[in-house]
Amino acid sequence: MKNLLSIDDVSLQEVERIFSTAAEMHDVQAREVKKLPALRGRTVINLFFEDSTRTRSSFEIAGKWLSADVINLSAKGSSTSKGESLRDTALTVTSMGIDGLVIRHPASGAPAQVAAWTGVPVINAGDGTHEHPTQALLDAYALTRKLGSLEGKHVAIVGDLTHSRVFRSNIKLLAKLGARVTVVAPPTLMPSGVGPWSAHDGFATSYDLDAVLPEADAVMMLRVQKERMSGGYFPSAREYAVTYGLTRSRLDLLKPGTPILHPGPMNRGLEISPEAADAADSLILEQVSAGVAVRMAVLYHLLAGEAEA
Amino acid sequence: MKNLLSIDDVSLQEVERIFSTAAEMHDVQAREVKKLPALRGRTVINLFFEDSTRTRSSFEIAGKWLSADVINLSAKGSSTSKGESLRDTALTVTSMGIDGLVIRHPASGAPAQVAAWTGVPVINAGDGTHEHPTQALLDAYALTRKLGSLEGKHVAIVGDLTHSRVFRSNIKLLAKLGARVTVVAPPTLMPSGVGPWSAHDGFATSYDLDAVLPEADAVMMLRVQKERMSGGYFPSAREYAVTYGLTRSRLDLLKPGTPILHPGPMNRGLEISPEAADAADSLILEQVSAGVAVRMAVLYHLLAGEAEA
Amino acid sequence: MKNLLSIDDVSLQEVERIFSTAAEMHDVQAREVKKLPALRGRTVINLFFEDSTRTRSSFEIAGKWLSADVINLSAKGSSTSKGESLRDTALTVTSMGIDGLVIRHPASGAPAQVAAWTGVPVINAGDGTHEHPTQALLDAYALTRKLGSLEGKHVAIVGDLTHSRVFRSNIKLLAKLGARVTVVAPPTLMPSGVGPWSAHDGFATSYDLDAVLPEADAVMMLRVQKERMSGGYFPSAREYAVTYGLTRSRLDLLKPGTPILHPGPMNRGLEISPEAADAADSLILEQVSAGVAVRMAVLYHLLAGEAEA
Repeated sequence: MKNLLSIDDVSLQEVERIFSTAAEMHDVQAREVKKLPALRGRTVINLFFEDSTRTRSSFEIAGKWLSADVINLSAKGSSTSKGESLRDTALTVTSMGIDGLVIRHPASGAPAQVAAWTGVPVINAGDGTHEHPTQALLDAYALTRKLGSLEGKHVAIVGDLTHSRVFRSNIKLLAKLGARVTVVAPPTLMPSGVGPWSAHDGFATSYDLDAVLPEADAVMMLRVQKERMSGGYFPSAREYAVTYGLTRSRLDLLKPGTPILHPGPMNRGLEISPEAADAADSLILEQVSAGVAVRMAVLYHLLAGEAEA
Repeated sequence: MKNLLSIDDVSLQEVERIFSTAAEMHDVQAREVKKLPALRGRTVINLFFEDSTRTRSSFEIAGKWLSADVINLSAKGSSTSKGESLRDTALTVTSMGIDGLVIRHPASGAPAQVAAWTGVPVINAGDGTHEHPTQALLDAYALTRKLGSLEGKHVAIVGDLTHSRVFRSNIKLLAKLGARVTVVAPPTLMPSGVGPWSAHDGFATSYDLDAVLPEADAVMMLRVQKERMSGGYFPSAREYAVTYGLTRSRLDLLKPGTPILHPGPMNRGLEISPEAADAADSLILEQVSAGVAVRMAVLYHLLAGEAEA
Repeated sequence: MKNLLSIDDVSLQEVERIFSTAAEMHDVQAREVKKLPALRGRTVINLFFEDSTRTRSSFEIAGKWLSADVINLSAKGSSTSKGESLRDTALTVTSMGIDGLVIRHPASGAPAQVAAWTGVPVINAGDGTHEHPTQALLDAYALTRKLGSLEGKHVAIVGDLTHSRVFRSNIKLLAKLGARVTVVAPPTLMPSGVGPWSAHDGFATSYDLDAVLPEADAVMMLRVQKERMSGGYFPSAREYAVTYGLTRSRLDLLKPGTPILHPGPMNRGLEISPEAADAADSLILEQVSAGVAVRMAVLYHLLAGEAEA
């Protein structure tokens, strides 16, 4: 694994290696002194062309705890606003002598292009509606800590599938780990060409949340990407919440102990109710914590070099 | 002291302990190599929901000189712009495994809420019109270095009291240290229910700056918060400067050697004249320097742990 | 050399010393562990009143590889937006106890004023249309590595001379190093009082790019500063590209092996064609790499102190 652009880049064996390292990193995270020397003298650039709190700071913390130098560059206030091409920005940044690039970009495929242009290890921190592989890795890592092996487990993924890069990465990784997935969405937010309850790329589909919830071993609610919507095919917020939200009353449909996930930031009262977000079985904050550990593991495997890996 | 949300959180004994540590930090600040290992492996997040240069960078420098990892998050370009609640932002940030939060927020009480929600040590770096406790600590520390004990000293605080969190923290801390305070403001900028020359919560009030200045052992000018004003009750800038500004001619009313303070950023020519800002007895730059030392002391006492404190 | 405000501050001997240190830094840059302890415990503030990607991050990386603490302050979201004067901002920032300031400012002369006010070492990272001395140093360093001594070499500088601080610093440094310079620009972008082919401050001028290129030992294309233009005296983009751009066909006019430079960010298709930017003799990415090494050298010489310098 030279880059992490898509879950396609990662073999099952590599996923297991990342999870094993992440577990060690999780132990470091719990220490009073959170600092490993693994990436001392290495430099990572967070190159973010979209706003982000959690992902950017999660990578920044992960890099710093590994003793890397971390430089944040946001597209606002950058050369791109002066008309520089993505290729020139990428080549400029990597010519400074850095060791890795973490990229978020509104265009699907941008991180892959940057990796091809620069030859520097690139981690995709979310590109358009394409993928967000570290999110899928942290989701699966958090799920595995809760449920053990995901082999044969049934995961429901609910919400705005059309616009979700989190969904696209998760569907691939859950398949790789042997989980069975049912995706639930209103017809207008179902990826085109995908109908109800027919097997599709290894996952089933449904328009009926109430029918799926009792069968699930885990429920992953997706953020409604209001800012990505153009009008027409989105139900009203109230209708969406009633039909596809994880409301308080729907919690009773779940088997006891079913973990609830959400990648954040949450729209409380829309796709997820406060009662679900704050439920005892909610893994949402464990996902955040796992995010740092998994990103430390990914940075370590990509950047620490052969001798240390 | 688990958090620093308000001067109410700090006992007199703790103030003295902070000042004593700050004096040691001041010595570090004067060294060529400004670096203590005290907070190595600890992570502090500066979570700023309002713009700030001096406070944010003062905390960032303080943390770095103690060898902490410091992460800056500003509300612009963050999850809050995607509709995330303050509680979810706070829980997300702290779930990453950090050791302390420095928060500036436009809503009074927000840092206290965050402390209650997260259980992580929180330092209030200014909340609405409520408090700005490290500003009061650095003001009092700088004053103490100049005047010795503040017991029985007479401090005049002048300006826009209604909107000033700096004022609210200072009035409490100066009372705790035994100083006598007179606050001076136009009637429209005097906190409601407070009249002239009557004792109020341990401080006297006046509308007449010229009468107060000759009696003062220190003068603290407050910034006119133009950006917080809504029209009507604010005198014109020119009228304000003439009546309540520390003009050049008013310097002659002061006893020789009376220190002049201002929390910055200054509106030169409005609440303070250039002659006053740059006077030999101006403590304004000493306040900035003291700010780093005091914030190092606060971070140290809140985060270094029992063994080292 | 106490500050680096202008190329006028640097003697030929100091330039040679900077280049010699930069060569050592270049070796560090090529290492797996890029970290020298030289500036440990020193604090550098990047105070940027204009947007910048490459210059700000180049200085940030340079400082961090020397183990300095580096603090970024941008004018947006700062006290200046609250009406604070440049002098007060500068005095505030330096009163925190920092060791050096890197300043970019839209007003020519601002860094020199800050140096005079504060007494702290100041590096000019670009001020108005005045100077950008580290850019000139890195250009000359990259050229020297390619061509050896610049004594007697003929450098063509082409483009928007009127608005270019890069040009102003380069013309001085190239003269200091014994190079012969011809500047080429449309009449409306030629600095006033400067006519064609007459010797001027040690450089020749021309309106005719095709006549100059065959005589050049190096060609430095300047960025067209569209954002600084006010209408009227600028030819249309298409006309500019045809007459003064380094087009594909003009590459044939160059002697074999003639290095091509551009300070970036490039307007591909305007002042430089893709074929020129990506030519085998293009030094553009070497300039970026040299930028970090040269800035490390400058920071080292200004901040490391007598004992270590």
